Amino acid sequence: MSLAKRVPIFLLRLLALGATVTATVIMVTAHDSAQVLNMTFEAKYTNSPTSKYFVIINAVASGYTLIVIFCPSKISLLRCLLVLDMIVTLLLDSSISANLAIGQVGKYGNAHAGWLPICNQVPKFCDHVTEALIAGFVASLAYFVILLYSFHNVFNLLTVKP
Amino acid sequence: MSLAKRVPIFLLRLLALGATVTATVIMVTAHDSAQVLNMTFEAKYTNSPTSKYFVIINAVASGYTLIVIFCPSKISLLRCLLVLDMIVTLLLDSSISANLAIGQVGKYGNAHAGWLPICNQVPKFCDHVTEALIAGFVASLAYFVILLYSFHNVFNLLTVKP
Repeated sequence: MSLAKRVPIFLLRLLALGATVTATVIMVTAHDSAQVLNMTFEAKYTNSPTSKYFVIINAVASGYTLIVIFCPSKISLLRCLLVLDMIVTLLLDSSISANLAIGQVGKYGNAHAGWLPICNQVPKFCDHVTEALIAGFVASLAYFVILLYSFHNVFNLLTVKP
Repeated sequence: MSLAKRVPIFLLRLLALGATVTATVIMVTAHDSAQVLNMTFEAKYTNSPTSKYFVIINAVASGYTLIVIFCPSKISLLRCLLVLDMIVTLLLDSSISANLAIGQVGKYGNAHAGWLPICNQVPKFCDHVTEALIAGFVASLAYFVILLYSFHNVFNLLTVKP
């Protein structure tokens, strides 16, 4: 693949790396506590399996992106890379959706199920989760564009070939 | 594309169609009620934005799959189809993850947030949600395999071309 085609993907991977590392760090350091009925209620990412999943997937995506950026990619690896990129995109998409769903209950609650919102008690934690979700979304979007661009390049190879 | 290459994709699309229609119907018809403290508590998919999102995405995926199955696909549309397939896969993945996250809270609750499980009160509803999630997962998996198979075919075209 020519250098001109590699640069946009390289930049997108850098963006994705920054976003997944940011999402992981913000989520892991998110912490707030509140006094409810004389009991201290602590909010942190380990309280919910969804947040733990989000942290794991973003950390894995960071590691994967780092490896891909610094390892020279051969044309023979293109097929394998495309599949791995797709899996990472799906995992990021899944972790954001799950975390967003729980965040929505945290913010608005669910009156039908009797689940009360918690964001008014631990606003700092909720702000951090929102920031982590935005970073995760940026990473997911970067990977989506990487996939689209890779498709585009592969199809162009098809049409350019004599 | 040769018939031999089209048949597996056709069968996978049929499987995906069956799964998304099943997921939509099961989720829409899922209903249960319970008496809690002299109040009737009704569980249905419209109670949660996540379930509504799940129903909408599965219905959209059903419509899309139906169109793709019955419209003759030209080779020129392959690029467009691959991108649309990827978007549908991402949307299905997202809707399942979000619904699974809420389902997990419904089943086990979250003691930290003070959210009680509801599945012991409305077991029929929870069983339906589980079935819908399984159907959704089958559809998502079918679309993932369609994508992998499409990649494989495109790369083969690249290597076969003189």
